[in-house]
Amino acid sequence: MEKIAFAGLGAMGWPMASRLKEGGFQVHGIDALEQRAIDFNGQAISTEEESRYLVRCEALFLMVVNADQVRSLLFEMGGVESLGQDACIVQMSTISPEDAAAISRDVAAMRPDLRYLDAPVSGGVVGARAGELTIMAAGAEDALAECRPAFEVLGKAVYEAGQQPGQGAAMKAVNQLLCGVHIAAAAEALALAEQNGIDASLMLSMVNGSSASSWMLKDRGPRMIAEPGDVTSVIDIFCKDMGIVCDAAKASRAFTPLAETARQLFVSSSQRGEGKLDDSQLIRTYRLLNGSA
Amino acid sequence: MEKIAFAGLGAMGWPMASRLKEGGFQVHGIDALEQRAIDFNGQAISTEEESRYLVRCEALFLMVVNADQVRSLLFEMGGVESLGQDACIVQMSTISPEDAAAISRDVAAMRPDLRYLDAPVSGGVVGARAGELTIMAAGAEDALAECRPAFEVLGKAVYEAGQQPGQGAAMKAVNQLLCGVHIAAAAEALALAEQNGIDASLMLSMVNGSSASSWMLKDRGPRMIAEPGDVTSVIDIFCKDMGIVCDAAKASRAFTPLAETARQLFVSSSQRGEGKLDDSQLIRTYRLLNGSA
Repeated sequence: MEKIAFAGLGAMGWPMASRLKEGGFQVHGIDALEQRAIDFNGQAISTEEESRYLVRCEALFLMVVNADQVRSLLFEMGGVESLGQDACIVQMSTISPEDAAAISRDVAAMRPDLRYLDAPVSGGVVGARAGELTIMAAGAEDALAECRPAFEVLGKAVYEAGQQPGQGAAMKAVNQLLCGVHIAAAAEALALAEQNGIDASLMLSMVNGSSASSWMLKDRGPRMIAEPGDVTSVIDIFCKDMGIVCDAAKASRAFTPLAETARQLFVSSSQRGEGKLDDSQLIRTYRLLNGSA
Repeated sequence: MEKIAFAGLGAMGWPMASRLKEGGFQVHGIDALEQRAIDFNGQAISTEEESRYLVRCEALFLMVVNADQVRSLLFEMGGVESLGQDACIVQMSTISPEDAAAISRDVAAMRPDLRYLDAPVSGGVVGARAGELTIMAAGAEDALAECRPAFEVLGKAVYEAGQQPGQGAAMKAVNQLLCGVHIAAAAEALALAEQNGIDASLMLSMVNGSSASSWMLKDRGPRMIAEPGDVTSVIDIFCKDMGIVCDAAKASRAFTPLAETARQLFVSSSQRGEGKLDDSQLIRTYRLLNGSA
């Protein structure tokens, strides 16, 4: 694999596509915002030229916002139609397992020669920049083997979730379930401490050293008890991700009461106009309900 | 402080009292099971001798099962009556903040000279044996200072939660909220992975290396996906502790939906006859509800 088209040059996609370029791949960037694509490619590229490029490339990577954008790129804007014989579609955006499986089926119906990898990531913008993403990939073994060199440029760990597209997305959903519930648990715990007149910073040092600790508590806890400031990852991201978690649970008929409660808390924060705040500010929903906000 | 009476020589109390003895304190052990007290003290001691001993000791430590046992020892079996002038009561059992505050008030009403420390611990039997407990202590500063040498024999960290008895218990409740919710979240996540045909052991190695990790996931996760075996801490402990968490939330009028859900899951496991299983087996409740048990 030498020639890659990379669709979605946002906060995650730009550093990922850049790393692939630095890693020796020929990368053609695609973005709905024309200027972003021009900046990445160093020149404006016409639709005709882009189609000719897609015919020659061996893989189309996607890192966009949601399943609608994936569908639009693949089926409306000609991605599937234009791709060369036997190319790989490497879908890395966070979408539900159901969407991943359905999109893969639709691709196969149109172009049985193409291979489809369902390959979401975790690690955020920091991981994308450092090439330390965790990649959860599901799909045919030959496609996984072909994409491995590219994955190794992007990530520190590649987990092969299974051969069925949807299993990568399910693995990502399980990961997000834990992240989202741990953020909400940290907020619930610190708000309870505040409500009992306990110094939240003392509480935090205690639990960070005990069996009560979690990665999220260590990372988000200090920002929960400080004034709202730096924004690392916004509440709206978890609104979307916990929505996907609950969709995955519904589709597989799994019982997920903690995830559903956490999802509702993130949605409430967003509905009250706080969707663009750092996700540590979920604690504001607890304070509001506790009458201490 | 040289002479200590230690009430409650169970799984936690025995190693704690033993460490105090090894640490140079004169320790008299008290237990409802006569043989246990004889084993600890090396001889049988009559009620009269015990009362005479209590008059001379400078502190009475309690590490019993619940608030009823604390009350019984202090008020019915003569603990408060017998203690010498200005002695400290160091209550380390896990009880609710409301009970801790009420017991402290009742002690003060009977014996205004006594000092009361609300000082629960975390770290379990392993921490008790190693002298690596975390101690959350609330009470008057002079009593805290006097007990510090004993605390240092028992624990690796002493957090002074505040001057009001009840604040130590509240800190412990916040700690247990996180522990209990994290166990339930780990079970929910791994059961969702199973429901989606993902290899649970692969899932676990992934999340243990990502921002989804927690101390409980690392510790309990492997036992969740193995056959039920070793019992480290039973489900019934968390039934009790999550009950205390929810009591603390109710008393301080705090919103704790995740803790309440986790509590109900532990109670359901216990009600189905699984209260003596390792708490990792909470995942059985998820599997049952998912129809995969």
